[in-house]
Amino acid sequence: MKGIYSVLVENRAGVLAEIARLFARRNFNIESLAVGETDRHDTSSMTIVSSGDQRTLDQIEKHLNKRIDVIKVRRLEERDALSLEMMLIKVAYSVSTRSQIMEICSIMGASILHLSPRHMVIELHAAHEKIESFIDLVRPFGILEVQRTGTISMSRK
Amino acid sequence: MKGIYSVLVENRAGVLAEIARLFARRNFNIESLAVGETDRHDTSSMTIVSSGDQRTLDQIEKHLNKRIDVIKVRRLEERDALSLEMMLIKVAYSVSTRSQIMEICSIMGASILHLSPRHMVIELHAAHEKIESFIDLVRPFGILEVQRTGTISMSRK
Repeated sequence: MKGIYSVLVENRAGVLAEIARLFARRNFNIESLAVGETDRHDTSSMTIVSSGDQRTLDQIEKHLNKRIDVIKVRRLEERDALSLEMMLIKVAYSVSTRSQIMEICSIMGASILHLSPRHMVIELHAAHEKIESFIDLVRPFGILEVQRTGTISMSRK
Repeated sequence: MKGIYSVLVENRAGVLAEIARLFARRNFNIESLAVGETDRHDTSSMTIVSSGDQRTLDQIEKHLNKRIDVIKVRRLEERDALSLEMMLIKVAYSVSTRSQIMEICSIMGASILHLSPRHMVIELHAAHEKIESFIDLVRPFGILEVQRTGTISMSRK
């Protein structure tokens, strides 16, 4: 099972280290983590995606709630949430493969941000699975570098 | 000064906690952090944005390089790098304000992903400063929630 936690924390040094340590110490796995500011400067928001059985996922929520630097924890249901991640990927091309890569980008909704003589930098923001598919589609051309954010999620309600 | 570090690490439990602790212990500030998988399952990639004087930024690089779970550290120059972050933001609207919000989204390149009777969920991926401007532009309508990834960066070269 997947657990998506949206965690509002105080924006001070060390909070991230402590939360990461909580997960490591208790062997809770982190599939993805995104940390960003909010619209206020004294709070940060983290989206943590973990997996485990129901008991583990409940325990994670409980342990997060116990921490005094944690202001609010919300557990999101996968079906009610909009979940996106973003990727920058550098792919090699030649004159003969460029149009194929352009077609894949166009179908998948990815944007080519930069074109060098031998490689291009492509941006894609989509659900986790679509990002994975895109990587598989361009792998044959030669992937030079990948940078991905973790997943961020928001309930539609 | 800003320092952008692209850090390739081994994908195992505890690495994130240790790196976050390194920053906290030495009082290196973290402006933004993004952690994601790469195209391989045994490595993760982190983009860390920090700030400080030249000496501090050099020290951060040196300390990151010392860690055995760190495979590679690259320091990116702001002017050579494509840097993006992504945001989901939930904004309140009424029949009379909806078209104003739509216009702002259209000008700023943001997408409305979901419309509820009283709020909408908007996605924007852009440079840090543009994301900040967007938040200021929609603040008067009522911001209900913000989720942001950290910045990810890739050199054009």
